[in-house]
Amino acid sequence: MADELEQTVKTVLEEDHARLAEYLSIETVSAQNRGIQETVDFLKREFTKLGADNVETWQDVGDSNPFIFAEFKAGESGNANKTLLFYNHYDVQPPEPLDEWTSKPFELTEKDGQYVARGVSDDKGELMVRLSSVKVLQQTGGLPCNLKFIVEGGEEVGSPFVPEMVAKHADQLKADALVWETGGKDADDNFQVTCGLKGIMSFELTVQTAESDLHSSLAAYADNAAWRLTKALASLKDDNNRVLVDGFYDDVRKLTPTEKAAVEQLEFNAATTRETFGLKRPFVTEDPKTALINDPTMTINGLTSGYEGDGVKTVLPKFAKAKLDCRLVPNQDPKKIADLIQKQLDKNGYEDVHVTFLLGEDPFRSNLDDPFVQLAVDTAHEVYGNKVKLVPNAAGGGPEAPFSETLNVPVVAVGSTFAGSGPHAPNESVRVADYAQDVSYTARLLNHFKDL
Amino acid sequence: MADELEQTVKTVLEEDHARLAEYLSIETVSAQNRGIQETVDFLKREFTKLGADNVETWQDVGDSNPFIFAEFKAGESGNANKTLLFYNHYDVQPPEPLDEWTSKPFELTEKDGQYVARGVSDDKGELMVRLSSVKVLQQTGGLPCNLKFIVEGGEEVGSPFVPEMVAKHADQLKADALVWETGGKDADDNFQVTCGLKGIMSFELTVQTAESDLHSSLAAYADNAAWRLTKALASLKDDNNRVLVDGFYDDVRKLTPTEKAAVEQLEFNAATTRETFGLKRPFVTEDPKTALINDPTMTINGLTSGYEGDGVKTVLPKFAKAKLDCRLVPNQDPKKIADLIQKQLDKNGYEDVHVTFLLGEDPFRSNLDDPFVQLAVDTAHEVYGNKVKLVPNAAGGGPEAPFSETLNVPVVAVGSTFAGSGPHAPNESVRVADYAQDVSYTARLLNHFKDL
Repeated sequence: MADELEQTVKTVLEEDHARLAEYLSIETVSAQNRGIQETVDFLKREFTKLGADNVETWQDVGDSNPFIFAEFKAGESGNANKTLLFYNHYDVQPPEPLDEWTSKPFELTEKDGQYVARGVSDDKGELMVRLSSVKVLQQTGGLPCNLKFIVEGGEEVGSPFVPEMVAKHADQLKADALVWETGGKDADDNFQVTCGLKGIMSFELTVQTAESDLHSSLAAYADNAAWRLTKALASLKDDNNRVLVDGFYDDVRKLTPTEKAAVEQLEFNAATTRETFGLKRPFVTEDPKTALINDPTMTINGLTSGYEGDGVKTVLPKFAKAKLDCRLVPNQDPKKIADLIQKQLDKNGYEDVHVTFLLGEDPFRSNLDDPFVQLAVDTAHEVYGNKVKLVPNAAGGGPEAPFSETLNVPVVAVGSTFAGSGPHAPNESVRVADYAQDVSYTARLLNHFKDL
Repeated sequence: MADELEQTVKTVLEEDHARLAEYLSIETVSAQNRGIQETVDFLKREFTKLGADNVETWQDVGDSNPFIFAEFKAGESGNANKTLLFYNHYDVQPPEPLDEWTSKPFELTEKDGQYVARGVSDDKGELMVRLSSVKVLQQTGGLPCNLKFIVEGGEEVGSPFVPEMVAKHADQLKADALVWETGGKDADDNFQVTCGLKGIMSFELTVQTAESDLHSSLAAYADNAAWRLTKALASLKDDNNRVLVDGFYDDVRKLTPTEKAAVEQLEFNAATTRETFGLKRPFVTEDPKTALINDPTMTINGLTSGYEGDGVKTVLPKFAKAKLDCRLVPNQDPKKIADLIQKQLDKNGYEDVHVTFLLGEDPFRSNLDDPFVQLAVDTAHEVYGNKVKLVPNAAGGGPEAPFSETLNVPVVAVGSTFAGSGPHAPNESVRVADYAQDVSYTARLLNHFKDL
């Protein structure tokens, strides 16, 4: 049986390679509103070809990109009383900076045992893994349970419409468990079963000091937007990564003993991590395992001011902008954090530096003792041996809280990424072998889920 | 005689308007290496047409843009023993940001009594004023003294070749006095006779924390180039515009009693300045007059890091860069200042933030008691009435020190700009009336100079 499944995985992957390449070739950049309809058409066609019993597009919330909803009923020998829901997104990050790609961002390239393309890890590749698993199951005894897929097109711009969409379609989305968009292996190649996500609050800081740019000879009396921004930013964080905003850490829930134990068994290989990203600076914490799970952060994503070109321009800029995000943990609230930051800037004397809230997602963490969580871990041991870790929550974010809370389901995030995937960076990649293992893992998980 | 001169100014200005427009239409952006040869050809032709006795281009120093040197001999009734040298530059600043121009940057536009175009104030317009003055003098009794013009093409990128060029051609450049590129009126419409320039040291700060951009979920353990840069910058300046670099102010020469008296008689109209630039923040000093003359400054010209586009990108940038300049006063040394800044960064714990020296120009100030300085002031009273001020040095910079020190001549900077000219900003302008007055002033200055 297991041999038959593994053999089928191989042949299905060969058949499905062209579909993966086609999906990755579409430039679905939600931040730039590109490629959306083409992607939606592609996915509807592929779900239908695969034999979905129902394929719908939902666009009844705000001016969201279409949500794609697809259902597959359990096969004849399956359990029609069990339903698993998959969440994915079809949009990807912008490909910039383009000059750092060693191959075309929207062309699937195989190199050194890796698939390279924008979205191959985050997470167009993962949806294709799941569709291949469906085909494997169809060819090896039929679908063991009902499946539902919800695929959105706004994850990379903060999933602003997910909470309302989930509330509106809660009946259709009803399931016994949820498998989140992506997951994979850590720097030591441990396969991770991850039970939650950090929250996020993205914002901009802007400051304007004049109506026009000035000549820098006027610096002796006129203030400078770039200096204001720099000083304001520096006042929000110390040199040890600690956020200097009153009340910022107040709502952070301490880890439970179970969560603490899970954190303890995690591995963090400083040398590998350092090498993977070419880190030149020491880490900012001495306890990265706990920090990644339960420390909120504040990150500058970008800085813009004045003249950024070649050569010299002696300008005194009227305007400066920083883009930032805060990663949040239970029970922090995105809007409240934005307010605290503005209050702190005011208190520090930077009332002219303005916080603009761009998006917020609540943090979420499943109960680590849930049987579905345990099933995901046990199944992982079949495929990945003893290299399996239970992770309370990922360091990244996503719109998980609205699903898990509204539908009241346990959630695991599993997938095919590795520590060097670089999900938002140039040369985003997954390893070909991991991709194949993930198809096998997903098929096995569904087979076991039938009997949970 | 004066009436004849004023009448001639009028007719010459009408004749020369097309030449001004043509000169401004050439996109001579030295930072982008555009339009250089076309501009050189234009100027050689115009000097020749105007009857120069000698026109040369010098390109014998490094890989400099051509220097144009032109000589006119005194007329028959002039004083062949007196020679005045004019310094100008034919290159201009880049026109960016383009969307803030209300007319085309390289098209002379007349609007609300102003000429608007890139370079009209800094300082293509000024050279055209001087050529028109030559024509006026030719038509009203002949040139009263010998004239020399040196026009360079690298001023906006820091005049890197001027010191060597002046040393090499000192004999040909020999003169009794030097008139600097530009000047004009302050915010209260006082005509300024300016006797020096601040120095400048332009540099970049760069920091790299990783080989690739990271996902911002890794902020709990990996350092961030944008934060490093921000904290490093903030450590270099306090909130009162004071530079926090050990030794930065050590070489600043105190103002002499004569210079102090000159500073006292200057006017600084805070309200006008605030309105002209739409300043939203208080001034950073309570003594702007002294600060503009004798305070060195450090200005952020630009900030670049990570994602600067629309929407949200949850990236943790590997690289960050700031462009800066320091305005320097006698007797500060550009290279020494760059070294002090790197030392301070190291001392502050930012050894990974690197200073790259881009260019340096020494500060310079003429002796305010020189008879030529007094002549320039006296002549100004003829044209501008009692609204004349003697300024020890401008707040801006330029390659004045190599000329004045090598040739051992007094220098004044005079011209047609006003407080709203915005020399490096969009919609750079001069007032049409000031332009005409400046032609008259320059002609009168030469007539008097003959007898000095």
